[in-house]
Amino acid sequence: MDHFADRLADAVRAKGNSVSVGLDPRWELLPKELRLRHGNSDLSSVASAYEEFCNRVIDIVAPLVPVVKAQSAFYEAAGPDAWAALSRILERARQRGLLTIWDGKRNDIAATAAAYAETAFGGALIDGRRHPVLDADAATVNPYLGRDAVEPFLEGAARDGRGVFVLVRTSNPGARQFQDLDCSGRPLFIRVAEAVGAWSREARGRSGFGSVGAVVGATYPAELAALRSVLPAVWFLIPGYGAQGGSAAGTGPAFGDDGLGAVVNSSRGIISSFDPQARDWEASIEAATKQTISDLAAATSMARLADKRAVGL
Amino acid sequence: MDHFADRLADAVRAKGNSVSVGLDPRWELLPKELRLRHGNSDLSSVASAYEEFCNRVIDIVAPLVPVVKAQSAFYEAAGPDAWAALSRILERARQRGLLTIWDGKRNDIAATAAAYAETAFGGALIDGRRHPVLDADAATVNPYLGRDAVEPFLEGAARDGRGVFVLVRTSNPGARQFQDLDCSGRPLFIRVAEAVGAWSREARGRSGFGSVGAVVGATYPAELAALRSVLPAVWFLIPGYGAQGGSAAGTGPAFGDDGLGAVVNSSRGIISSFDPQARDWEASIEAATKQTISDLAAATSMARLADKRAVGL
Repeated sequence: MDHFADRLADAVRAKGNSVSVGLDPRWELLPKELRLRHGNSDLSSVASAYEEFCNRVIDIVAPLVPVVKAQSAFYEAAGPDAWAALSRILERARQRGLLTIWDGKRNDIAATAAAYAETAFGGALIDGRRHPVLDADAATVNPYLGRDAVEPFLEGAARDGRGVFVLVRTSNPGARQFQDLDCSGRPLFIRVAEAVGAWSREARGRSGFGSVGAVVGATYPAELAALRSVLPAVWFLIPGYGAQGGSAAGTGPAFGDDGLGAVVNSSRGIISSFDPQARDWEASIEAATKQTISDLAAATSMARLADKRAVGL
Repeated sequence: MDHFADRLADAVRAKGNSVSVGLDPRWELLPKELRLRHGNSDLSSVASAYEEFCNRVIDIVAPLVPVVKAQSAFYEAAGPDAWAALSRILERARQRGLLTIWDGKRNDIAATAAAYAETAFGGALIDGRRHPVLDADAATVNPYLGRDAVEPFLEGAARDGRGVFVLVRTSNPGARQFQDLDCSGRPLFIRVAEAVGAWSREARGRSGFGSVGAVVGATYPAELAALRSVLPAVWFLIPGYGAQGGSAAGTGPAFGDDGLGAVVNSSRGIISSFDPQARDWEASIEAATKQTISDLAAATSMARLADKRAVGL
């Protein structure tokens, strides 16, 4: 498989935007007709409702955006059938030409980290044979444990053409508590960013970007701008846009002049853009996706991607 | 349900030791007869082998130790059937009187963190009704995102009598990269520990310990001793003992004079203590568990627990 950073750049260019749609199903926010049809008697019913909903979202957004990101927590909370559904949902997304990000923020050491990397990427190795589990194109990882704990993800990414997005600045209000601690003159999140930059430089694709990216919340535009200068050739995965309060303009510094370099994720703003009672929820998801693309294009150099696409570049 | 710290103290006193056995199944380390019987054709076979193995381990260690800790990664890597097996394995452990720790090192924000806490503790809330998923007594959590991201775990723990172990000093060789960064005169892991101490003081049980504990690797005995002075009334969960290189004597400072305060986990040293070809693997697990208990008792004040138990205190 080609280098992840190149596959991402190609996908972004092909769609003319770099929006990621979050596949983060929550029962109370699903369309009511879908909830009624599947029922709420047990978690298996919830899992089947999640799967139908996510499949519809995928079919709606696949012609529009390059990436989907699945938040692991919502599938785990809905029990084993939802975990099984997640792997089928990611498979469907791949079949529709989408790049898939498993947002699990995993972190552990040695053989345990290797097991997470297998879950995310190449699959479990049983007596010499690989058995895919999630088979995602990229995964999110927490850096607190240090490089050796991230290593199995880097190895899996290098071997299988996958990407790793390391948490640098998260989008929550409390991110500052530890991430802003002054570490000998520079805040912790900048220290983490410096390490991410080094890891990313070890495996660059022809696009110039590395297979290791950074998670940077849209809710911290000043920090996002600072991080772009520390990390010039690193893909940013940007959560926190829209429902969490991040603005389109705030993501601007994350984009290069050519419109590459940042993937902006929207979850609730797209997949919960409708009144659950409404029957036209699919039209609402499509409209919200298009609106997200045009809002970001209006405020950032992402617009250049669409321009180039229009003239066939 | 009673306060987690008290339930843990009671369980430790009742067994006369504070050893946790790691339920971390890995295919290549399972007894060969078990692998042959279940077969390796697909991940469902692997999952059923894991379940039989873990059930046997539980039955062997339940009379001996107070706690088991299941490493989430190994179940996730073996696919959805193994994830389903994990919840049954934890249920069996509870039925055998063991306290259960879900070692998932989860971390995320807002509703997502709440979904992880539901997975760990009280279960998914669907139309006002709770559906248990893992229903563990405690869970491990990564602190990088800050207090608001840990909050849903603290709330779940308070409501349901559960415990949260926050990563402070991990057991891997690379832990120093970020955890030792100098944050205005004190290393990051001490800063995290100070926060953990504050969170823990908010919800103390009658034992004096809080429901929030700290993960501190046995592989860093000096840091472990330093952390005990920062966190006098916090349960430590100590990985890295045995196979990873942590010594029994090195865990000594984690224990109070009464033998309480620390849970020492051993995974490979117990559940992979046998030659996979051997037929007497169950006897080996039992012997390794007893050896772990006696090694720790010989080197730490944990011995006082057994003394008190012997005289009926």
